[in-house]
Amino acid sequence: MAVTDIATRVYDHSWRLDPIVRSLLDTDFYKLLMLQMIWREHRDVRATFALINRTKSVRLAEAVDEAELREQLDHARGVRLAKKELIWLAGNTFYGERRMFAPDFLAWLADFRLPDYDLRVADGQYELHFEGAWTDTTMWEIPALAIVNELRSRAALRARGRFELDVLYARAKAKLWEKVERLRHLPELVISDFGTRRRHSFLWQRWCVEALKEGLGSHFIGSSNVLLAMDNDLEAIGTNAHELPMVMAALADDDAGVAAAPYRVLEEWQAHYGGNLRVVLPDAFGTKAFLEHAPDWVADWTGFRPDSLPPVQAGEQIIDWWRARGRDPRAKLLIFSDGIDVDSIEATYRHFAGQVRMSFGWGTNLTNDFRGCDPQGGHALEPISLVAKVIEANGRPAVKLSDNPSKATGDPREIERYLRIFGNGGRAEAAVSV
Amino acid sequence: MAVTDIATRVYDHSWRLDPIVRSLLDTDFYKLLMLQMIWREHRDVRATFALINRTKSVRLAEAVDEAELREQLDHARGVRLAKKELIWLAGNTFYGERRMFAPDFLAWLADFRLPDYDLRVADGQYELHFEGAWTDTTMWEIPALAIVNELRSRAALRARGRFELDVLYARAKAKLWEKVERLRHLPELVISDFGTRRRHSFLWQRWCVEALKEGLGSHFIGSSNVLLAMDNDLEAIGTNAHELPMVMAALADDDAGVAAAPYRVLEEWQAHYGGNLRVVLPDAFGTKAFLEHAPDWVADWTGFRPDSLPPVQAGEQIIDWWRARGRDPRAKLLIFSDGIDVDSIEATYRHFAGQVRMSFGWGTNLTNDFRGCDPQGGHALEPISLVAKVIEANGRPAVKLSDNPSKATGDPREIERYLRIFGNGGRAEAAVSV
Repeated sequence: MAVTDIATRVYDHSWRLDPIVRSLLDTDFYKLLMLQMIWREHRDVRATFALINRTKSVRLAEAVDEAELREQLDHARGVRLAKKELIWLAGNTFYGERRMFAPDFLAWLADFRLPDYDLRVADGQYELHFEGAWTDTTMWEIPALAIVNELRSRAALRARGRFELDVLYARAKAKLWEKVERLRHLPELVISDFGTRRRHSFLWQRWCVEALKEGLGSHFIGSSNVLLAMDNDLEAIGTNAHELPMVMAALADDDAGVAAAPYRVLEEWQAHYGGNLRVVLPDAFGTKAFLEHAPDWVADWTGFRPDSLPPVQAGEQIIDWWRARGRDPRAKLLIFSDGIDVDSIEATYRHFAGQVRMSFGWGTNLTNDFRGCDPQGGHALEPISLVAKVIEANGRPAVKLSDNPSKATGDPREIERYLRIFGNGGRAEAAVSV
Repeated sequence: MAVTDIATRVYDHSWRLDPIVRSLLDTDFYKLLMLQMIWREHRDVRATFALINRTKSVRLAEAVDEAELREQLDHARGVRLAKKELIWLAGNTFYGERRMFAPDFLAWLADFRLPDYDLRVADGQYELHFEGAWTDTTMWEIPALAIVNELRSRAALRARGRFELDVLYARAKAKLWEKVERLRHLPELVISDFGTRRRHSFLWQRWCVEALKEGLGSHFIGSSNVLLAMDNDLEAIGTNAHELPMVMAALADDDAGVAAAPYRVLEEWQAHYGGNLRVVLPDAFGTKAFLEHAPDWVADWTGFRPDSLPPVQAGEQIIDWWRARGRDPRAKLLIFSDGIDVDSIEATYRHFAGQVRMSFGWGTNLTNDFRGCDPQGGHALEPISLVAKVIEANGRPAVKLSDNPSKATGDPREIERYLRIFGNGGRAEAAVSV
């Protein structure tokens, strides 16, 4: 006798839509850390975020239905933190610390809702902008990316056969497990999931995270996704992002203020967070300039997260700098998270073994690697380089230079100005695939 | 909210065991065709069947728990045909014919139960014998094999992690789909599932059959498994097996009777069944001898199912014989079913394209190919060459010579006698892997 749970079936069909974002914790942990600081220090700053598809060849407005996109964005706007989520944020230990989030911040967060959005279509792409208080718009970054990416996956998989779909996921599971088996050969590996923004879908990210938990055991230290960390009793992982120096620089009144912005961000950060949360993201305006002009106390921070140069090159540059500043790299931490996959994890791990502590933040190639898995072939399931970046703060343009000019964002004239301030040294063009 | 259907959960846990055989239709179609003929013509013959593990290196009694084996065999003995199954047997069209099963036979079948069994352990192997009326013992062949094989799979997968199991099946699904994609390149392919006896498990066979239905469309003509054929509205496929000539020869009073037995079987068969069911299984005592001494009317049958020589060699031998008898092979059918897999299907298909009609019965390598899929490695999931053969009829020893001496069964002295009667010509030793 086949048993169908009628109530479940009827309940499932009663949903107006299959929501992609069902919790405000379905976001990256660093957003919450940054949000608390922004709320404390910059509550009056207005910031505009924009969706940017760096993979121009994929015409998103043709792949993803606009009405569906609006439905999902509207649904996300209706989501609030559940009581148990607030209790967990208040009671859980993050990076070994209790009470990471202050009671007044959590009281404000309890009423948080995502702000309005502005959606248009131009030249086959979506122009999706979020304008308003920085404390509000910053929280759109991850849900907006997750929604667009998952809607694209769903569109690609519409009208497929049941077994074709089963085989698609079977191949993706087998593919991920091959990676797990290779990673098991790295005895000191420390790795976490950074794949929320580019994930194929929420359920697939959940499968990947739970599979790594079983397959890598204690080598898998956690997930940047707060909801998955909570549900699976994993560590929530993450520190800070480019938006902090980008907004600080945009708000500066002169070139000297722009040049000082990256260090002012760190000063603010260390007033709020300590220990392993003191991780420098050095490449917003070029790592070389950042290191040259950094105050000596920056070398006392726990580690760096290089995010746009090739990992070995980026790591060597930082290790050299630590040594020049008289610090022992073996006591320091490097977090690699820029488009890494098993090959580069292995190469980076072997290169730096014994020289420095390492941690890997595995993103797109963990949660959205369906290459070679689609029974119909084609590229519809290949990840695209979609980002949501701050483009304006208090009406002034925001800029990111990056170590890789392909990852630069902002008005071309402003980019020119920033290049005059920070220099172009050490930057290197590289293809951005994810 | 995660929803658990409490009633289903409680119901599932209330089973004393997870049954392997839940229906008497979970057997090969040829058993029912043969059974009707045996019931009509040989109701008083007594026949003993025995389980034979040709893969001696696998010590089955150590891999499979005896108490579990008895539980499953006992459970199978309690199963009877359901009313809807009898209605389907009566009302369905088999091989284009209505009323394949006569009302008096179905009336008898309605009360059918599997007879008792005798189970012992010797030298790490199970000695599993079925003694009684041929009409009863013949029906143990498929369920006994399916039970032992699935218990072996279950034992191998005990205490595995949830994701390890998920990855195991993901790999097996991906592996099967690679085969499907290769088979799609054969434009005139006709293929069916013959994988019940050696299947990894019932649920896995069901997945394979349903996947082939979607993946190969009309090229997949059906399943030898009657239950899966019924449930999926596929054709039930199969004709006859070695047990018919083996019993007939055993019952013969002299060597001449033994030599004539293969042809007497065919005479009986064609009195019951016509058209595409007239398929010769020529290798019980060697194909060469069979063809040399065959009456001319055998060449009027629809086709042959060679079952122990390599497919190209076997097919060429039969095509030469048809030509020598003045028949056009292009109007004839060859069914290949001996240990085939995609490589041999492709090679055989290409070799005979345009010369003869072909059909492939895909068995072990369809429903039990987990080679390379087990995250723990090892051989615990590799198929073994397990068969259930008639060993005695009315107290006289039964013998199979086969074209491959490795597949011969019976008392060595009786085999000697049969070799004197039929000769050893054309037989060729080959490794039996499945």
